[in-house]
Amino acid sequence: MVQLLQGAALPVAVCAGSLCARWGSSHGGHKSGQYQRSHGPNWRHALAGLLAGTGAVLAYGLHHSQTEQAATTIVQPIAPASSLPIYTQDEVTKHRSVEEGVWVTYKGSVYDITEFVSMHPGGDKILLAAGGALEPFWALYAVHSQGHVLEILSEYKVGELSAEDRRKQQSVKSTDPYSTDPERHPALRINSLKPFNAEPPPEILSDNYITPSAIFFKRNHLPVPQVDPKSYRLQVEGVSGGAPLSLSLEELKTRFPKHTVTATLQCAGNRRSEMNKVKQVKGLNWGIAAISNATWSGARLKDVLLAAGYRPEVAQQTSHVQFEGLDSDVTGTTYGASIPLNKAVSEEGDVLLAYQMNGEDLPADHGYPVRVVVPGTVGARNVKWLGKIIVSDEESSSHWQQNDYKGFSPATDWDTVDFKSAPAIQELPVQSAITQPAEGAVVERSAEEVTVKGYAWSGGGREVVRVDVSLDGGRTWQVAQLQSSEKGQVPAPSPPPGRAWAWKLWELTAPLPPAAQELEIVCKAVDNSYNMQPDSVAPIWNLRGVLSNAWHRVKVTVKEDEEEQKLL
Amino acid sequence: MVQLLQGAALPVAVCAGSLCARWGSSHGGHKSGQYQRSHGPNWRHALAGLLAGTGAVLAYGLHHSQTEQAATTIVQPIAPASSLPIYTQDEVTKHRSVEEGVWVTYKGSVYDITEFVSMHPGGDKILLAAGGALEPFWALYAVHSQGHVLEILSEYKVGELSAEDRRKQQSVKSTDPYSTDPERHPALRINSLKPFNAEPPPEILSDNYITPSAIFFKRNHLPVPQVDPKSYRLQVEGVSGGAPLSLSLEELKTRFPKHTVTATLQCAGNRRSEMNKVKQVKGLNWGIAAISNATWSGARLKDVLLAAGYRPEVAQQTSHVQFEGLDSDVTGTTYGASIPLNKAVSEEGDVLLAYQMNGEDLPADHGYPVRVVVPGTVGARNVKWLGKIIVSDEESSSHWQQNDYKGFSPATDWDTVDFKSAPAIQELPVQSAITQPAEGAVVERSAEEVTVKGYAWSGGGREVVRVDVSLDGGRTWQVAQLQSSEKGQVPAPSPPPGRAWAWKLWELTAPLPPAAQELEIVCKAVDNSYNMQPDSVAPIWNLRGVLSNAWHRVKVTVKEDEEEQKLL
Repeated sequence: MVQLLQGAALPVAVCAGSLCARWGSSHGGHKSGQYQRSHGPNWRHALAGLLAGTGAVLAYGLHHSQTEQAATTIVQPIAPASSLPIYTQDEVTKHRSVEEGVWVTYKGSVYDITEFVSMHPGGDKILLAAGGALEPFWALYAVHSQGHVLEILSEYKVGELSAEDRRKQQSVKSTDPYSTDPERHPALRINSLKPFNAEPPPEILSDNYITPSAIFFKRNHLPVPQVDPKSYRLQVEGVSGGAPLSLSLEELKTRFPKHTVTATLQCAGNRRSEMNKVKQVKGLNWGIAAISNATWSGARLKDVLLAAGYRPEVAQQTSHVQFEGLDSDVTGTTYGASIPLNKAVSEEGDVLLAYQMNGEDLPADHGYPVRVVVPGTVGARNVKWLGKIIVSDEESSSHWQQNDYKGFSPATDWDTVDFKSAPAIQELPVQSAITQPAEGAVVERSAEEVTVKGYAWSGGGREVVRVDVSLDGGRTWQVAQLQSSEKGQVPAPSPPPGRAWAWKLWELTAPLPPAAQELEIVCKAVDNSYNMQPDSVAPIWNLRGVLSNAWHRVKVTVKEDEEEQKLL
Repeated sequence: MVQLLQGAALPVAVCAGSLCARWGSSHGGHKSGQYQRSHGPNWRHALAGLLAGTGAVLAYGLHHSQTEQAATTIVQPIAPASSLPIYTQDEVTKHRSVEEGVWVTYKGSVYDITEFVSMHPGGDKILLAAGGALEPFWALYAVHSQGHVLEILSEYKVGELSAEDRRKQQSVKSTDPYSTDPERHPALRINSLKPFNAEPPPEILSDNYITPSAIFFKRNHLPVPQVDPKSYRLQVEGVSGGAPLSLSLEELKTRFPKHTVTATLQCAGNRRSEMNKVKQVKGLNWGIAAISNATWSGARLKDVLLAAGYRPEVAQQTSHVQFEGLDSDVTGTTYGASIPLNKAVSEEGDVLLAYQMNGEDLPADHGYPVRVVVPGTVGARNVKWLGKIIVSDEESSSHWQQNDYKGFSPATDWDTVDFKSAPAIQELPVQSAITQPAEGAVVERSAEEVTVKGYAWSGGGREVVRVDVSLDGGRTWQVAQLQSSEKGQVPAPSPPPGRAWAWKLWELTAPLPPAAQELEIVCKAVDNSYNMQPDSVAPIWNLRGVLSNAWHRVKVTVKEDEEEQKLL
């Protein structure tokens, strides 16, 4: 089993692709101290910088989670050391295993990274680069383009690539798989640039009941694929008694009734930053806005499965419907996820193969030309750039279904976690957060009242029926007004039971408590199964930082008017 | 609008029948102080005893909630005052309204209770007795057989009933409607005798995965009706396009496939006693054992509705299925409830018209001969002694559906509550509790470890996937072992998604924390929608004391061994 660095925060913002697929599950095998024996003296310094204790690691993680835009700056090539031997590509290619040695090239230099393999934070996926160039792999995750990563690499330099092979490498355009990613709205707060992950500012989020597509939170696991709508085919396989089906975009649009659903999507990691304040977790440092609400139109998954030969009477209760995206890493591994068959085929499940978002073609970041929309279910199962649907007795074998997006006890750490012991997240628990005022805002005493706004939503089609707001840290509560349409519009009729897919915005205007110099504003929502949000974060903390739905708290200062201040 | 006594705790243990139907909803109209103007001087003393402040009221409520067995002692008749006039029954009968005066008789005396009507804790249902005898009404709720109730009544005495009419009254046997209630198991802890409400001791509850029927918690709203299985008919009405259907017990058993489901039922008021510790609520003072698990067999409701002409294609999403029990009060008002039609007709809803519990005919207390079992749904909708099924666009109009069994904000009190503003409880939230050790138990230090046991369940078919247990008040946690069958038996296979109707028992054996003199044991469960229990009771407190599902906490003492104590 490959040994990994413990505690290294490198993948905080980037362990999202299959290159990191075994990060979580193989991590448990680590024995502390082992890495110290396996490298030379010069190594220690660079590694110590990486491992200089929690403080440094957290600072590093924080730096990265804020934005990775800096990572796009051009990396300086390492100066060649002419005393080292010259190798041909053929000689390098012979070193592709731990037994034969693991060699790689980078910008014309040759590196023997055999000893580093067991320490690679991304796991043994590093072997995919063995015998070849690092560039295409590093391009996939921008975290590698950091000065200290190059420092580490330089310790392993063993030679130079021959001039001829350098020329050959340079003639193969070193493509950035993210170079064709679409333009994004400048208002978005970027958590990771490659892959692109960003959320809108909270105060903008609650301005619209239907989130404009441009500021709808983006959560990509891989580069945005370029899909030609003319040649696009959706494959449907595995239907018991049926035959494989292949649909063009046009066929999907014309052979099946168009169905429209307004549904909120939420990332499993929404509000992860609050868990990070308790104790560092792995994952993008989302604020409260990895959640948005849109109107989706497309064919029902149920109708497509029926067309592929699905017959309800032969359905096995425990079956699953797997989805494969067209987004993939350099190894060709695509994004994948699955949902239970009963959700997929339920008349009331409203699962869509959506080709429109808010009345227009899906934007590139949201899965053009076709994505799955699984209302009430965690964002990760709403597979974008959908390429294939497979009915199966098994859940998706993907990293994201098996070894990610699951909840654990606060007692579970990376040494003890058993991903098989927890179910893949499907329906999400009840959630709410305050979008206004912002943390640290100042309220004027002369205003006499304060307006608090936010969103509330629950998974599984459970309707939010009440939001309680406290101005005093949870000691006393007031009931907020719920809003289930754009302001000023006639509210939508109450959804049928179990099909409340869209969030509610809420608002409370309350008198400023006399004498209070600080308000601790708290919100908590209740859904129609009367599930409540837990009071505090620490007891629901989990190593992946998912399912963060404790009461949301915002502290604001009450500023006395100058005249009053004079009197005091 | 009828005015009511505010703060009177009289109905704590008894306001469960329709005699109290308007208790909650009309209570908001009360203006404090009004009762003081409306009665004579002698009245004040008796009333003061009732209203002598929260302390007395709470003490009274507590006394009653523990057991009402004392209430079965025979009430002393009030001595006739010969100076008062003699009235005939005809004369009494003329006084049946506030305008004409409200007269009643009790044990041969005549009372003018006109002024008391507005103060009756049970609301204007008192008018049902106007012009007649109190006995049949008082018999229904044992709380009336209290000394101070007779004291209050005596203040209103205006005469004696004529000898002839007294003889007539006596010849009509003054029946106790509870006299035919069945025998009960002596282990049960009684919260109310009439109607019968009782729960098993917690340490017995978790001894069996399938709760023996005899100790399965009993929650009756009215006397247990005597139903002759030979003449029993189940009426089915309101099916759009169908015709009314009437089924004998035999037909129900033979015309429809027998379906068996293991399902946990829980009272909405389970663990209400913990809310009472925060602030007094209205309702039976349940401990943690108003929940039990049984195997139910019967016809599927879906099949019976199909037989009555139900066609899915004409179903309206917003329809309901109402149930009427055969249990009724003296006015003929029966117990009633409803569930959403989609739950009733869903292939996966598993709603039964059950005639067996744990392999035998339903016991009398559990609805013989037929009850509804709505898996995943609050006990109150699992109507016992089922008489009628009505498909309707409306929810049941019963008190229990409209003005009871709903959740509110902690900020909502009886002056501000609007029952229309909250949905009727259907699915219940995730729940767990510690059945062992008991509060205040002593653990020997020499035992070196402690075993904690309990139950966990969630509504809506959501499977409990994890129970976390803390020995230090919630600071650190350990994961308990889950049990989904009787101990030593092969565990049942995992239920299909959304159909986990049965609880899980759980157990954790952990080392005693060194040096701890007291353990605060806490449990919290997580279901497969990853809903969690809230941390504390106060923020979910509600005026009816329902939905009490905060972390359960038990304090135990660690007793040092004598030898060790000597060393200390």
